[in-house]
Amino acid sequence: MKKIYIISGPAGVGKSTTSKRLAELFEQSAYIEGDLINHMVIGGYLPPWESEESLLLVWENIADLSINFVQANKNVIIDYVAFPEEVEKLVQKIHAKVSDVEVIYVVLWVDQDELLKRDALRNKEHQMGERCLELVKEFESKDVKERFVLNTTHLSPTDLDEILLNIKENPAFIY
Amino acid sequence: MKKIYIISGPAGVGKSTTSKRLAELFEQSAYIEGDLINHMVIGGYLPPWESEESLLLVWENIADLSINFVQANKNVIIDYVAFPEEVEKLVQKIHAKVSDVEVIYVVLWVDQDELLKRDALRNKEHQMGERCLELVKEFESKDVKERFVLNTTHLSPTDLDEILLNIKENPAFIY
Repeated sequence: MKKIYIISGPAGVGKSTTSKRLAELFEQSAYIEGDLINHMVIGGYLPPWESEESLLLVWENIADLSINFVQANKNVIIDYVAFPEEVEKLVQKIHAKVSDVEVIYVVLWVDQDELLKRDALRNKEHQMGERCLELVKEFESKDVKERFVLNTTHLSPTDLDEILLNIKENPAFIY
Repeated sequence: MKKIYIISGPAGVGKSTTSKRLAELFEQSAYIEGDLINHMVIGGYLPPWESEESLLLVWENIADLSINFVQANKNVIIDYVAFPEEVEKLVQKIHAKVSDVEVIYVVLWVDQDELLKRDALRNKEHQMGERCLELVKEFESKDVKERFVLNTTHLSPTDLDEILLNIKENPAFIY
């Protein structure tokens, strides 16, 4: 059975690195970077956190790409800020088209102090400063079930293999 | 009525530059880069010029994204090597879902000597050398209708505005 991994969490927790490495672990896989889908819009671009329409369009596109990839026998890794209600809608859309697929939902998490510390280590132009914390608060307000949260505060980059194994094998993350 | 522009042609003729600038001319637009869609596949990646399955998957994804963008009221610019039979299939798929849309097909063209000259001016790592000519031959073998071909051999980068106007206004390119 093919799997769709939704790798979510606030900015700066390591979604991209984790997602790319996860995609490389499968013989058949596709990696969908939500930010990249979002930035296909050029004329009239509105950021999805300011426009409900933009947000819906990104998820519509992610859903259709995921369906095509699963139908082509690929595991799918989605790297994007995904709140529980968005995951629920995505799963419904996917199951309407493909039945034989398992969805895995992981919210990567890093405690605030560590998040700011990691942010300060980035190149100046990539630093987000206090803005990091806005998404943290938004996730906290959304009541994400604890079993979907993967806290990596006390793990270092060398522990990535352990994180990947956890995502792949831990049934708690199955949606 | 929304429009879908398919900007095709061999490697090195300026598809990306032209497509991006074209997308910027519209109040509402989306830019679909075929290469980027293609490289979403990670595990089991096969280049579309070696695998019919890969090629079909790229076009399936381009079609669904185009439909979503048009339904969200955006003009769409597709930047990819598109031969006549692929355009025909794409148009059929799109018209099955959206009726009120016009497709524009442009095959950018540069004569061989000029193509090799431009290729030699690129950074070493982007130079394609004789491989440029493989796609030229493939296009020549596909009998592209002359009205879809836009030869830019004698135009310089400063003529880009003229090229864009031609693509936007010339009814010969309407599929």
